[in-house]
Amino acid sequence: MTAARLIELWRGGLRESVHSGHVVIADVNGIVEAWGNPGAVIFPRSSCKMIQALPLVESGAADAARLTDRQLALACASHEGAALHVGAVGEWLAHLGLDEGDLRCGAHLPGDAHERRRLVCSETAPCQLHNNCSGKHAGFLTLMRHIKAGPEYVELDHPVQRAVRRAFEEVTDEKAAGWGIDGCSAPNFACTIEGLARAMAGFAAPGTGARGQAQRRLFDAMVAHPELVAGEGRACTALMRAMRGRVAVKTGAEGVFVAIIPERRLGIALKIADGGTRAAEAAITTLMLHLGLIDRNDPAVARYLTGPLTNWRGKVTGELRRAEGFP
Amino acid sequence: MTAARLIELWRGGLRESVHSGHVVIADVNGIVEAWGNPGAVIFPRSSCKMIQALPLVESGAADAARLTDRQLALACASHEGAALHVGAVGEWLAHLGLDEGDLRCGAHLPGDAHERRRLVCSETAPCQLHNNCSGKHAGFLTLMRHIKAGPEYVELDHPVQRAVRRAFEEVTDEKAAGWGIDGCSAPNFACTIEGLARAMAGFAAPGTGARGQAQRRLFDAMVAHPELVAGEGRACTALMRAMRGRVAVKTGAEGVFVAIIPERRLGIALKIADGGTRAAEAAITTLMLHLGLIDRNDPAVARYLTGPLTNWRGKVTGELRRAEGFP
Repeated sequence: MTAARLIELWRGGLRESVHSGHVVIADVNGIVEAWGNPGAVIFPRSSCKMIQALPLVESGAADAARLTDRQLALACASHEGAALHVGAVGEWLAHLGLDEGDLRCGAHLPGDAHERRRLVCSETAPCQLHNNCSGKHAGFLTLMRHIKAGPEYVELDHPVQRAVRRAFEEVTDEKAAGWGIDGCSAPNFACTIEGLARAMAGFAAPGTGARGQAQRRLFDAMVAHPELVAGEGRACTALMRAMRGRVAVKTGAEGVFVAIIPERRLGIALKIADGGTRAAEAAITTLMLHLGLIDRNDPAVARYLTGPLTNWRGKVTGELRRAEGFP
Repeated sequence: MTAARLIELWRGGLRESVHSGHVVIADVNGIVEAWGNPGAVIFPRSSCKMIQALPLVESGAADAARLTDRQLALACASHEGAALHVGAVGEWLAHLGLDEGDLRCGAHLPGDAHERRRLVCSETAPCQLHNNCSGKHAGFLTLMRHIKAGPEYVELDHPVQRAVRRAFEEVTDEKAAGWGIDGCSAPNFACTIEGLARAMAGFAAPGTGARGQAQRRLFDAMVAHPELVAGEGRACTALMRAMRGRVAVKTGAEGVFVAIIPERRLGIALKIADGGTRAAEAAITTLMLHLGLIDRNDPAVARYLTGPLTNWRGKVTGELRRAEGFP
């Protein structure tokens, strides 16, 4: 099966650009609704951070380090590198007796406008704490310390990544179709869209064991602290705030988005074939509307919904639309 | 015919993302080589600025205002809003007895890192001169003054835009399939990929009349001043510099790229269906390599060719590849 048309850009009454992709809405028993190819193999990228955080909680490392919900939210975050995020991750590392130099995620300029401006205007280089994945890496370091493993925690055969792979294969119920190196240097395991949606359904309907408790705890941390999971002006934060704790959503690079919907016991995974973020954001927001979880008139989510696009003079120049049949 | 796979992103031995689109290489007699659907209707966006500048030259307005090749290059530019570009367009308007307020392009933060930093760190708002289309608009104002037309030169029925539409339909040899409003508020007319490639072939093999002289003059201006057509760190500038006056290339929003190749009497037009810039740049650079116009080992163009992608720590994480069969 090929990718399905999901989101289109229209201008002057003509279709200017088209984003195709794959979407699966699943419960623990399997596919409930799908577009494109549920068997398409993808890299979840940062959309699976709550899966990568499972060993941190299940191993007892999170409790041993007395991690708070704020820290668990950061472990699942692709944050903006605002002072809020950088400060919290820095304190977390200090509490472990570690510092920024122990991270293996690399440094990049933060997305947060204020922090970016502070760095650029003071000619200060960003540090690894600014990396959008620094919270996930602080979680890896916490587990690394707990199991007394070596410092190169992003190596594929490091006990931390072996534990992550085991959890990933269990919750997707698939053997990893492969692995790649993510932007933050950590391994990222491949699975089908269906497998990723199934994993999210597991978080939506957690069991009573250690796995279920960890899933519930990570979901609760994400929805309790949407500002830590991404940041101001970001889709994940705006959508989670708008859904007031009912749903956790998480983006991943190259057009991936997932959702965890406990009240419906549903999980969602989607991948835009071309990797386009604008389409991934419009698609997940459209699905939240489709499931009655957001209000079309909520100004906080309007910019992520399909609708008119304006130019530098405020003129409407085009429109982002749902492709016919989606959803 | 549907879009053809052109550029792919690979990670860990798996295809992570795919960009499809339409490509036509044409001479004045028609299609020489094509991928995807040559009849696909597109908006050329900024890739057709040399067409939008034809009435400026053909009307005698450019000569009456004593425009230099530098100004004609700016009329065809999507510039970075560097001090170089902002200063030159400002002087041009002053020479006409006009100022920034006469522009109708709107203001946006420039792409140029130095100028952007200067504005952000001094809390100065960008002005319309910073708009990447300000040179095109200065050309429109020059023609407007020459023909003594009213100030609202971006209106569809304004004499300037009627002249642009006439030239556009003549060089594409098609009746415009429609029109939209561009990011800079000017009308942008729709045509087929084949029509846009045919128009570029016309610039590559200009006749001896007023049209041919204008086409030759605009081509010469673009290749003589690649730094004015885009700016440092931009594909158009890097590729034109690398091809040392032999070829003019121009990008347009939503994944469009064109090329004018006089020595082969060829024109090229391509559109990435999803609007992806990374794929449009990789595709046009791949075609220049395919036609023997650039050297695979030229470090100045390496970042626009398909090849390895590295992350924040310099690790190779993936690879941009040509899809099978392209080119």
